[in-house]
Amino acid sequence: MSSMKKIMECVPNFSEGRDLEKIEKIVSPFRGKDGIKLLDYSRDEDHNRCVVTVIGEPKILGAAMVEAIGIAAELIDLTKHEGQHPRMGATDVVPFIPIKNVTMDEAIQLSKEVAKEVAKKYNIPIFLYEKSATSPERENLAKIRKGQFEGMKEKIREAKWEPDFGPQEVHPTAGATAIGARMPLVAFNVNLDTDNLEIASKIAKNIRFANGGFRFCKAIGVDLKERGIVQVSMNMTDYTRTALYRTYEMIKVEAKRYGINIVGSELIGLVPMEALIDTAVYYLGVEDFSVDQVLENKLME
Amino acid sequence: MSSMKKIMECVPNFSEGRDLEKIEKIVSPFRGKDGIKLLDYSRDEDHNRCVVTVIGEPKILGAAMVEAIGIAAELIDLTKHEGQHPRMGATDVVPFIPIKNVTMDEAIQLSKEVAKEVAKKYNIPIFLYEKSATSPERENLAKIRKGQFEGMKEKIREAKWEPDFGPQEVHPTAGATAIGARMPLVAFNVNLDTDNLEIASKIAKNIRFANGGFRFCKAIGVDLKERGIVQVSMNMTDYTRTALYRTYEMIKVEAKRYGINIVGSELIGLVPMEALIDTAVYYLGVEDFSVDQVLENKLME
Repeated sequence: MSSMKKIMECVPNFSEGRDLEKIEKIVSPFRGKDGIKLLDYSRDEDHNRCVVTVIGEPKILGAAMVEAIGIAAELIDLTKHEGQHPRMGATDVVPFIPIKNVTMDEAIQLSKEVAKEVAKKYNIPIFLYEKSATSPERENLAKIRKGQFEGMKEKIREAKWEPDFGPQEVHPTAGATAIGARMPLVAFNVNLDTDNLEIASKIAKNIRFANGGFRFCKAIGVDLKERGIVQVSMNMTDYTRTALYRTYEMIKVEAKRYGINIVGSELIGLVPMEALIDTAVYYLGVEDFSVDQVLENKLME
Repeated sequence: MSSMKKIMECVPNFSEGRDLEKIEKIVSPFRGKDGIKLLDYSRDEDHNRCVVTVIGEPKILGAAMVEAIGIAAELIDLTKHEGQHPRMGATDVVPFIPIKNVTMDEAIQLSKEVAKEVAKKYNIPIFLYEKSATSPERENLAKIRKGQFEGMKEKIREAKWEPDFGPQEVHPTAGATAIGARMPLVAFNVNLDTDNLEIASKIAKNIRFANGGFRFCKAIGVDLKERGIVQVSMNMTDYTRTALYRTYEMIKVEAKRYGINIVGSELIGLVPMEALIDTAVYYLGVEDFSVDQVLENKLME
């Protein structure tokens, strides 16, 4: 089984959320190609941004991504762009995400190849971010993007913000782009049988990385007003290292201190199969389980 | 997403476990075809039998199965066959198993189409069994096969054992074949921290269908001598209706009566993804989860 299919995901964000015709043109490189598949795209008129999910064979995906960035650079003029969401480029951010039979190193490698190609072809400055970052302060997208398109003209001239690829000046209409690699995110929310938001917020603090909790867990307390309960809303940034069940059990332990119970949970959007299988294997105490035993995995080799 | 790929599994058993060249010829219709895939075959010299696992698009799978049965009928002569495993046909039994985007009704339908075609093409009598059975006493393969190849010559002449398709006499060298549809089996074993086999056997009785337990659970107690513990060994015959976690939790409850704890479990062989996802969703109390949210499912559509 050495010929197992490699599957990479890419979730590019483009700074166009209103003109459907333009969006269709931008995503067109992801359609009708063997080996990749456009899973979804969602746009937001207020943000004036669209988020695309495409998946497939890494090389084909990378080439299609280069194409799409070229089309976005032609069609989107950031000097005329307005929207609520911060942005610095026509193609604002491009994360590559290893899904199956590919490593994080391969995702990083692909992100660098695409970055290099885009810089060369379209003269757009590229910042490598997240796992592809070339320095710690470039891991965080928000830090790179601070100042946005308008502020980037000056910022990019600082030695500290010299781009990783491309010219040390923003593209006049397409700005600058962040390209990188990251793990798939899992949006996991746990509901509590209280309407006391303070309790959810305290528990969120206990379990999240920022305050000393789990390394790959972001968390906030959220008020579900119409249900009269509160929620610990989490973003799991690496489910392979901070398992879902671990945060669940820890929330249960913390809630006990307030006499509160968990009443349910939510998984929002797509979830990698392994995140769920790890959970099942933990609770049933399965010994020596291999994901190769999952029937459906045999179908994808 | 109306064009979701249908995936059926088939696990034919052929009465040849020694001659590798013959086995290769019999499984050859499952190789090199778009839309189906030979996952595995295992043979046993003592049983003189091989068990093949093939998966794919129902129509292509059915046609390949008809071909394979024809080759087996040519190459296997049951008048000269010896082996420990009971058998009545060169192709002994052919279960179709719905895996993805197909219903049990479609599996039953396919089994009947294949049965009809095989009977017509090769003049082999066919008994429909399991979910495809045309009467309750034909659901159980062991009952149909009782008497084996040698005894079938007489048995098939009884009105009660008239085959569902084909002549009312056994094929002179290829015998008779059972074809049907069933759910995927999940082999799930739960280990107890005792070496008392009687306790495992008692718990097995409590939870299995035969003695009043769960409808889709077969169970026996097993001695794991080298580990010094015992096991409740289960065959889950419909995990969609008798969930794995339910038997696990019930074993835990029963074990408590003896002061015994569960120390782990095993999943043997292939497991459908949904069986594990149901488990994760139960233990995390996930509300409104849909299997469409599993990322990998998007890859197979």
